[in-house]
Amino acid sequence: MRTTAGGTMIVNLDVTLRDGGYRNNFDFPLDYALHHAREAVAAGLDHVEIGHRNGSFTPMPGIGRTGAGPDDYIRAMADVVPPERLGMIVHPKNITEADLAAMYRSGVRLLRFCLPAGAPQAGLALLRTAVDLGFTTTVNITRVSRLAARQLVELAALAGDFGAHVVYLADSNGSLLPRETARLVTLVRSVTDAAIGLHAHNNLGLALANAIAAVEAGANWIDSSVLGMGKGPGNLVTEQWLAYLDRHESAGAHDLGRLLSLAHRMGTEIPEARPRLPLPDLVLGRFDLSVEDRAQLPVDRIGDAFRLARAMTAPATA
Amino acid sequence: MRTTAGGTMIVNLDVTLRDGGYRNNFDFPLDYALHHAREAVAAGLDHVEIGHRNGSFTPMPGIGRTGAGPDDYIRAMADVVPPERLGMIVHPKNITEADLAAMYRSGVRLLRFCLPAGAPQAGLALLRTAVDLGFTTTVNITRVSRLAARQLVELAALAGDFGAHVVYLADSNGSLLPRETARLVTLVRSVTDAAIGLHAHNNLGLALANAIAAVEAGANWIDSSVLGMGKGPGNLVTEQWLAYLDRHESAGAHDLGRLLSLAHRMGTEIPEARPRLPLPDLVLGRFDLSVEDRAQLPVDRIGDAFRLARAMTAPATA
Repeated sequence: MRTTAGGTMIVNLDVTLRDGGYRNNFDFPLDYALHHAREAVAAGLDHVEIGHRNGSFTPMPGIGRTGAGPDDYIRAMADVVPPERLGMIVHPKNITEADLAAMYRSGVRLLRFCLPAGAPQAGLALLRTAVDLGFTTTVNITRVSRLAARQLVELAALAGDFGAHVVYLADSNGSLLPRETARLVTLVRSVTDAAIGLHAHNNLGLALANAIAAVEAGANWIDSSVLGMGKGPGNLVTEQWLAYLDRHESAGAHDLGRLLSLAHRMGTEIPEARPRLPLPDLVLGRFDLSVEDRAQLPVDRIGDAFRLARAMTAPATA
Repeated sequence: MRTTAGGTMIVNLDVTLRDGGYRNNFDFPLDYALHHAREAVAAGLDHVEIGHRNGSFTPMPGIGRTGAGPDDYIRAMADVVPPERLGMIVHPKNITEADLAAMYRSGVRLLRFCLPAGAPQAGLALLRTAVDLGFTTTVNITRVSRLAARQLVELAALAGDFGAHVVYLADSNGSLLPRETARLVTLVRSVTDAAIGLHAHNNLGLALANAIAAVEAGANWIDSSVLGMGKGPGNLVTEQWLAYLDRHESAGAHDLGRLLSLAHRMGTEIPEARPRLPLPDLVLGRFDLSVEDRAQLPVDRIGDAFRLARAMTAPATA
């Protein structure tokens, strides 16, 4: 955590082991995962998201430990990282109240809820239970680029009503521009007293610009991944974000050198972490399509993929 | 060229064959170079910089055609691309008035001068000659992050006095933040009637954020490279920049699909074009060091490289 020139406390959250898991079926070697969490915290990240509990939204066969998130994995993590630094993310449909209690007991203290815009009630009830158990909680509103302002306001306000400490805007499609990001942050801030977070994807290369815009608009929880490892083209790149904070503000609150050493080891040991700029994902971002739409595009013929994506999203004419 | 919502005409310049040449000793196959220039223009880029004339600043043995820039190469380009789209860059110490005349005769119409801050006079005389010959001219002020405001103002004003049509800020070290970029654009705009350009490097992942900030501050010539191929971590990524313009404004002035097809072919045929996020170059950007300083860093031990870079740039204490 650090204070910006404007007085904002920025809380940085590492999502590598979770969002990066979409690239390797959540199958990080335990040794690497423990090393990663320990070094990320030592480098000054405030929280490490160690995985999903009971899988992602869509079931994935043979999902690895950072996708299943069992108790023994949490306990191993809590042995090397203080529990107040450990976070997990849940899809409410995948978990029960018993899971909440087990996660807390095993050593997690930050719990993030992915709430579907359509039917949030079951998730909100679990959120309240988590708050009562003592978790710090966030509600992650996914695919914000596709929500009507009215839906977004309603969901953010409900999240605050049920006790969420942070309301996250998740740019799942990686299609937001900086000024749109700032507008959404301003909108959500106006209807809740919860802190505001940003979870960025880098389809258009705008994750860093959007993080800067979000913080300038009043967000202060920022997700990032080492080497950007995350779904598709990845997330905000942690080392770029910390370098920005270091140059922008007085340096020294983070140990960027230590973070770079972690990034170097990760690039060596985890082949799927290699940085990339996939052109099909840029097309998705350009047209605000989701990663699920990728299967419809002829990704080997990128010009055709572009034209098809444009046709898929063209306004209907009478 | 296209008009932004604010009424600015943006002029986009492709520097792939030139700045990308630092990765492959300027040795692009002629077939590819011709294809690249033709497709970049067909996709809507306003100018293509086809290379240096008589080499880069530092002599490089065996430099390829986009570094040597001989007349027959220019003529081959002018056969496939209208001359008013063709640009070259020169270091004044490398060229004579005879070169200027030969380049014009062979088909180049945009000429860019790299001016050293210390001794610009010889370059300014050549600039005036180029203006008189009928070239559109730019003065590229390199390593702007290291110039005192007074030097920058002096050089920009002189460039305008000698007839430069565009004054470019070149963030050679890739260390500028968006608000610094905006400040420098505002500063230079206030002392010249020339148009203002930005040549960004992506050491900190801020090339796109800086281009956005520069245009918002009144710059309107923007350099970019396909796949970002350029020195070190590369330049502003053309496909990201055009996607941003497409999403930000009304779409259609560019053919992004065509540009993506070019990017795909480039990624297939030119191995050195592969996107990358080299950690040592991020360290250089963090500490505003130049690519020439890279040789001093133990790049295989990135934590040590970080600490050494910090020590190299620490303010002296009494």
